[in-house]
Amino acid sequence: MSENTFKILMVSGPNLSLLGKREPKIYGTDTLSDIEKTVSDEAGKYSMGVTAFNSESEGDLIKFLQEHGPDADGVIINPGALTHYSIALRDCIAFLKCPVVEVHLSNLHAREEFRRTSVIAPVCDGQITGLGKYGYLGAIRYLHEKLSS
Amino acid sequence: MSENTFKILMVSGPNLSLLGKREPKIYGTDTLSDIEKTVSDEAGKYSMGVTAFNSESEGDLIKFLQEHGPDADGVIINPGALTHYSIALRDCIAFLKCPVVEVHLSNLHAREEFRRTSVIAPVCDGQITGLGKYGYLGAIRYLHEKLSS
Amino acid sequence: MSENTFKILMVSGPNLSLLGKREPKIYGTDTLSDIEKTVSDEAGKYSMGVTAFNSESEGDLIKFLQEHGPDADGVIINPGALTHYSIALRDCIAFLKCPVVEVHLSNLHAREEFRRTSVIAPVCDGQITGLGKYGYLGAIRYLHEKLSS
Amino acid sequence: MSENTFKILMVSGPNLSLLGKREPKIYGTDTLSDIEKTVSDEAGKYSMGVTAFNSESEGDLIKFLQEHGPDADGVIINPGALTHYSIALRDCIAFLKCPVVEVHLSNLHAREEFRRTSVIAPVCDGQITGLGKYGYLGAIRYLHEKLSS
Amino acid sequence: MSENTFKILMVSGPNLSLLGKREPKIYGTDTLSDIEKTVSDEAGKYSMGVTAFNSESEGDLIKFLQEHGPDADGVIINPGALTHYSIALRDCIAFLKCPVVEVHLSNLHAREEFRRTSVIAPVCDGQITGLGKYGYLGAIRYLHEKLSS
Amino acid sequence: MSENTFKILMVSGPNLSLLGKREPKIYGTDTLSDIEKTVSDEAGKYSMGVTAFNSESEGDLIKFLQEHGPDADGVIINPGALTHYSIALRDCIAFLKCPVVEVHLSNLHAREEFRRTSVIAPVCDGQITGLGKYGYLGAIRYLHEKLSS
Amino acid sequence: MSENTFKILMVSGPNLSLLGKREPKIYGTDTLSDIEKTVSDEAGKYSMGVTAFNSESEGDLIKFLQEHGPDADGVIINPGALTHYSIALRDCIAFLKCPVVEVHLSNLHAREEFRRTSVIAPVCDGQITGLGKYGYLGAIRYLHEKLSS
Amino acid sequence: MSENTFKILMVSGPNLSLLGKREPKIYGTDTLSDIEKTVSDEAGKYSMGVTAFNSESEGDLIKFLQEHGPDADGVIINPGALTHYSIALRDCIAFLKCPVVEVHLSNLHAREEFRRTSVIAPVCDGQITGLGKYGYLGAIRYLHEKLSS
Amino acid sequence: MSENTFKILMVSGPNLSLLGKREPKIYGTDTLSDIEKTVSDEAGKYSMGVTAFNSESEGDLIKFLQEHGPDADGVIINPGALTHYSIALRDCIAFLKCPVVEVHLSNLHAREEFRRTSVIAPVCDGQITGLGKYGYLGAIRYLHEKLSS
Amino acid sequence: MSENTFKILMVSGPNLSLLGKREPKIYGTDTLSDIEKTVSDEAGKYSMGVTAFNSESEGDLIKFLQEHGPDADGVIINPGALTHYSIALRDCIAFLKCPVVEVHLSNLHAREEFRRTSVIAPVCDGQITGLGKYGYLGAIRYLHEKLSS
Amino acid sequence: MSENTFKILMVSGPNLSLLGKREPKIYGTDTLSDIEKTVSDEAGKYSMGVTAFNSESEGDLIKFLQEHGPDADGVIINPGALTHYSIALRDCIAFLKCPVVEVHLSNLHAREEFRRTSVIAPVCDGQITGLGKYGYLGAIRYLHEKLSS
Amino acid sequence: MSENTFKILMVSGPNLSLLGKREPKIYGTDTLSDIEKTVSDEAGKYSMGVTAFNSESEGDLIKFLQEHGPDADGVIINPGALTHYSIALRDCIAFLKCPVVEVHLSNLHAREEFRRTSVIAPVCDGQITGLGKYGYLGAIRYLHEKLSS
Repeated sequence: MSENTFKILMVSGPNLSLLGKREPKIYGTDTLSDIEKTVSDEAGKYSMGVTAFNSESEGDLIKFLQEHGPDADGVIINPGALTHYSIALRDCIAFLKCPVVEVHLSNLHAREEFRRTSVIAPVCDGQITGLGKYGYLGAIRYLHEKLSS
Repeated sequence: MSENTFKILMVSGPNLSLLGKREPKIYGTDTLSDIEKTVSDEAGKYSMGVTAFNSESEGDLIKFLQEHGPDADGVIINPGALTHYSIALRDCIAFLKCPVVEVHLSNLHAREEFRRTSVIAPVCDGQITGLGKYGYLGAIRYLHEKLSS
Repeated sequence: MSENTFKILMVSGPNLSLLGKREPKIYGTDTLSDIEKTVSDEAGKYSMGVTAFNSESEGDLIKFLQEHGPDADGVIINPGALTHYSIALRDCIAFLKCPVVEVHLSNLHAREEFRRTSVIAPVCDGQITGLGKYGYLGAIRYLHEKLSS
Repeated sequence: MSENTFKILMVSGPNLSLLGKREPKIYGTDTLSDIEKTVSDEAGKYSMGVTAFNSESEGDLIKFLQEHGPDADGVIINPGALTHYSIALRDCIAFLKCPVVEVHLSNLHAREEFRRTSVIAPVCDGQITGLGKYGYLGAIRYLHEKLSS
Repeated sequence: MSENTFKILMVSGPNLSLLGKREPKIYGTDTLSDIEKTVSDEAGKYSMGVTAFNSESEGDLIKFLQEHGPDADGVIINPGALTHYSIALRDCIAFLKCPVVEVHLSNLHAREEFRRTSVIAPVCDGQITGLGKYGYLGAIRYLHEKLSS
Repeated sequence: MSENTFKILMVSGPNLSLLGKREPKIYGTDTLSDIEKTVSDEAGKYSMGVTAFNSESEGDLIKFLQEHGPDADGVIINPGALTHYSIALRDCIAFLKCPVVEVHLSNLHAREEFRRTSVIAPVCDGQITGLGKYGYLGAIRYLHEKLSS
Repeated sequence: MSENTFKILMVSGPNLSLLGKREPKIYGTDTLSDIEKTVSDEAGKYSMGVTAFNSESEGDLIKFLQEHGPDADGVIINPGALTHYSIALRDCIAFLKCPVVEVHLSNLHAREEFRRTSVIAPVCDGQITGLGKYGYLGAIRYLHEKLSS
Repeated sequence: MSENTFKILMVSGPNLSLLGKREPKIYGTDTLSDIEKTVSDEAGKYSMGVTAFNSESEGDLIKFLQEHGPDADGVIINPGALTHYSIALRDCIAFLKCPVVEVHLSNLHAREEFRRTSVIAPVCDGQITGLGKYGYLGAIRYLHEKLSS
Repeated sequence: MSENTFKILMVSGPNLSLLGKREPKIYGTDTLSDIEKTVSDEAGKYSMGVTAFNSESEGDLIKFLQEHGPDADGVIINPGALTHYSIALRDCIAFLKCPVVEVHLSNLHAREEFRRTSVIAPVCDGQITGLGKYGYLGAIRYLHEKLSS
Repeated sequence: MSENTFKILMVSGPNLSLLGKREPKIYGTDTLSDIEKTVSDEAGKYSMGVTAFNSESEGDLIKFLQEHGPDADGVIINPGALTHYSIALRDCIAFLKCPVVEVHLSNLHAREEFRRTSVIAPVCDGQITGLGKYGYLGAIRYLHEKLSS
Repeated sequence: MSENTFKILMVSGPNLSLLGKREPKIYGTDTLSDIEKTVSDEAGKYSMGVTAFNSESEGDLIKFLQEHGPDADGVIINPGALTHYSIALRDCIAFLKCPVVEVHLSNLHAREEFRRTSVIAPVCDGQITGLGKYGYLGAIRYLHEKLSS
Repeated sequence: MSENTFKILMVSGPNLSLLGKREPKIYGTDTLSDIEKTVSDEAGKYSMGVTAFNSESEGDLIKFLQEHGPDADGVIINPGALTHYSIALRDCIAFLKCPVVEVHLSNLHAREEFRRTSVIAPVCDGQITGLGKYGYLGAIRYLHEKLSS
């Protein structure tokens, strides 16, 4: 059957819309659209369809996850800077039943000390950090394996 | 050409030899050999050959990396509990020129507080945690993309 | 006179819309609407009318309080996870002249350490935590006594 | 039947005997006896009988709870300053099977930093702070709802 | 030429809309509009035009800066309470190429301890705190000197 | 009348005598004399006369402020590194009745962590940091507005 | 000779009177009397006589030790929760000249973080924790060896 | 007139009854009775009568102060080890209206780190530490001067 | 039957080989061999056979436990200084199914602050510290009681 | 004999010269000269002569103590704000062989947190704080008793 | 006499074998052999013979020191990264009777914060850091002076 | 050539003038003059001339370094207790272009915890601690090698 079997949400938090424009040395030259397309293409190979959502607003991210999370089969989330303090986002994710992977483009452990703390990660399946856009591919692979096992 | 173009080291620290025997709820039922084979197979698809090494000894891990690191094209390391205190291992990795990915089977962020600190990660390209053996596949994919870019 | 004499705001922060769906063991099976009705009924007995407001957005909560707070006779607020970091919400509440009671359904002191800190409580009259929906009834009673004294 | 169905203990720790005499701006003008009567009257409406106990001594408070706790249907405790360090009192309360509510007259969160920590609260059902004597009424209501549900 | 040569953004965070109404002893009696006019007038003397923006929402502040920041010649920002925790706002400001000055009306160093920490200041040119509305004038002067040097 | 109405003290602490020689990337190329002249000229426009004093010695700075502070209408002080530990200087400033502004040339918040703490700022009217010599102009403007209001 | 040569004090702090009733999974089913008898029997084998004392009161424990400590040949003390904060008890024990062993039934290191700190242990000969009632037997053995060496 | 005009309470906490017996190098050879007599004699010279009270029990100390404090003209208290944690004792002292001096025989600042913290001192007039029994004489002198001024 | 029924491992970490030579005031004059013999003799009385192992190497200790732990009925371990940081050793012990007792000759609580933290103890049954070689006898007794119950 | 037998140094640190002028509510209305005279008179009664020295400079205070300390029979020092950070002053005092008493007019424990730490006190005989100028009399009395014992 | 009178151990920890290859900007271009030769030559001038030992293994370093330390007249040790956590190495060194100097090539105080802590230095005679290979010469000189004094 | 080629400053901070008099067990019996002569003699061997300066005053030390530092070829500084807090001295040293070595006679790591922190060392080439006066010789050797390389 040609349709995608699994629905994946790809959620991007504050300032990720600046990708490709901001500090390319750290974040690379791909725009968020480029990465979303790459992720979507990769997911397609595993019969997974990707719904991408990006917002600068903690509240909107929570609303999106509350609305679409219950029907999703997996979530890939890069919470941007909200990673470090948004317990509201954490609580929302903790509510989800599907697997969730937190992805960061840069290596948080090699930057400012405060970036090493994620309030989100403890309620996700796991975290990928520092592998650039390829981190998303690892998350896709994980969701595929997890969902098909 | 049939040979593998890139040499990848897969290094496993203390107590990973117990995989498949220890707390399967957390670490799964695969043995370290199973995972090494899985990684090797996956790497083969990308023309990468994997040399696996496992030791309970910080010193031996350092010696292995000092000896084989300079010729490697990539390193995947799961330092086990040394992650949290072995600055000696960190310094050894900082010396390597090839990309290095730190992988953990379990989600360190969802366990004891002290497991959230990695002294190794700041000198790696990045870290994958909590995705079980599939974390290794994400690392392989990253190395492939990195090496072929 | 049949009208309610006092206007009470009942404000609910992020993820409280999930009540009755999320972790019922901790939060019970009542939905937010159920609780709002219970509170409104109880308030009615004391000639207090309740305006309920719920939002996932820190900014919207602040706007609501800025707009309706000056005319209110009392506020019952469950800031959800914003309790732990929203100094902006705190500052907005500090501005109010009427009594404010912070209510939490679960016992914050029996959960993760970071939930024990409220940046909101120091600018409220007091805080009720861990008494489930009955905590709201205690808040109503307090406002009644306070307003009629 | 005219008798009270449920037995409630109202336990007051060090210096609460000074109520009505000490810093009335913070604690109000009611004496402990006044408050005990108020609580008892309120409890009577719900067919609950209140046994009040007050002591300046940690040991005596523990002995009282060890002796009367097993037969009680609910406990309301204001541990006074013992709140902040008496792990012995905490352990004693943890042993109780009935619901326990910690009540404080003043808003601990608006006073010295050390008053924000309660070693008792984690082993209670919940905590009410800052609502003056009306906090006790909220606790009574909670116990009523809890016991009749 | 009569037009203003430089475009300056004046951005005001949560609760600044309450200026002139809230705690006048600390913040003075001017409303935000008064201050915006003062700043605009002063800026006009230096051929700088001011676009003022105020929001209670972290997300909207970020969106405004993402949209108008790239074309601005300077930014004066009073992030309100977001100063102390909004790393998302920080990241957004770090992206700007023009000079940015953080301004606070009250002396943060003379208030609660937590107000002494700014997560924003490290990515600004500098910070002015405690000089009331005159702090804005100092920022205008700085931008003028900076832009004309 | 041609005389200056207000007497302003401009006090500079340890190592500011090195200005223009030390790390010009951070502190600019102006010498302390240059800056004192700039400040004096600017002050003159507002009918304020500036007495400049510079010392490497905590004790001498205190003595100067004890002697001249009581007759001054305003103080601008850059305490240099004493900012971070000289409680003796703080106590001396706390004694002054006129407005005091703390000024730093560099952005303390963007340097070593220990430079973010000022023991002086809590007893000043406010602080300007990171605006180079123009920070002094903002302080002058503030004193003018303050003194003429 | 049939008499016991050495006098041993066995001192039990708050809530140990609940043994056998409280959380048997952690503390076992023996009552304090059972344990005291076991200890006394064991001590008898080594010609040591045991005087057991239990109190919920810090003051009474201190008084007992002040009175009987000077004549004792050894002390086994389980201070209960006082372990973690009673510096008064510590000072009293520091005064004793005979060997003192601190015993805990449960493994303090495997429970809440605050239970890992003993203010008593530094002034004892040593500490036994987590070995249930058998910990007392180890203490008896130690005292025997110590006293007969 | 031969009677003593002022009533002074001299309160001694846990383990002070051991004075003269315990670690004479630190505490000297005088017993508590000796010191009480010395204090009483000295007080007599200033027409002050001393009521001495000593207890090992926090509760009894509080009760004594609650009962006799309201009629006292001054209090000298050596809380022993309760100094470091008895917030209950602190609260009781805070209630007193007469001057209170905290006295310690040994220099708390030259012993273990935890002895440097007094939870009592902030609610006393002041503290004397390290001057042996002569510290009491300084306290008597202070009370005399205070009461006769 | 003359054979030993239970197999006990006695594991000694770094620098315990120096026993009897190093700081005899703290550790006594017995060599490690002496203690091993004492332990073996005592164990023999309870039909337990002891296999002793000593190493300066964290890796070798882990390997020994991985190899012999699964067949052991009990383990007595003195990890030496590894107690304070070897999470690798901890993880290895956590894997064992038999009872494990941590023993230290000296009283860790009476030495440097860092010696008070054991990363090992939370995964053992319990810990004996400060009782010299007699601590081992207490451990033997515990294992006997545990294994025969 | 009419001469004073003992030489006492009375040393006063930064800002004590402001006494009587600065915050009289906290420090009283006596000037430093007044207090020095009071101390000198009191000392005279005990045949002790007082040499008073006051400086705003850490270095000068150290020089004074280095020069006159070796010949002194006792030192009373109020280091002012240097109390909290001048380890150099501490080291100088540690060198003295005669008794040293640290005196503070105000109750440091009732002010800002940082004033509770004295780096000087651990090397003095003791400390008197909060008793105003009468604290000096207590110090004089102590020195008298100490020197004549 | 031609023989060397004193035996000096020069011990090098993990990753020092990489000297000359690793980050030459920080560590210089000399290999460990070069430095060992330099040290040996210098020592020879003072009739001291050097035995050099290098290992990546904490255990092997300890074993070497246990074996050769008792016969050595002095030790120069660069523990590499073990400096920061190897308490086992510390304990081993504390056992030595001869003088021990800790040497680091780079200035630990100018690198990551965690490198500023040495668990080894407190049990050495002293530490030399940041002087490159010349630091070893200073250690040799010290040992010479110490041994010949 | 008979002249000294290089100019070396030897700077000694507070209380070093007491050397030979103060705590000889820790600091030895040499006076500062003795050490200055030793250093000067040693330096002479390497054609380096030493200008020694000692002061108890932070300000004077800074002035000396500001005046003579620019012409010096090397600096050896023992900042005494200023080591631990004088950021002003640090800033002054950071300005110097020649190599700077911090020297301490005693082993700071084996004394009070606060002596382990040097605010000076991060801006020096390195630090020598604990080697007594011989530490200066190591510094001289370093400067010689550095300057002649």
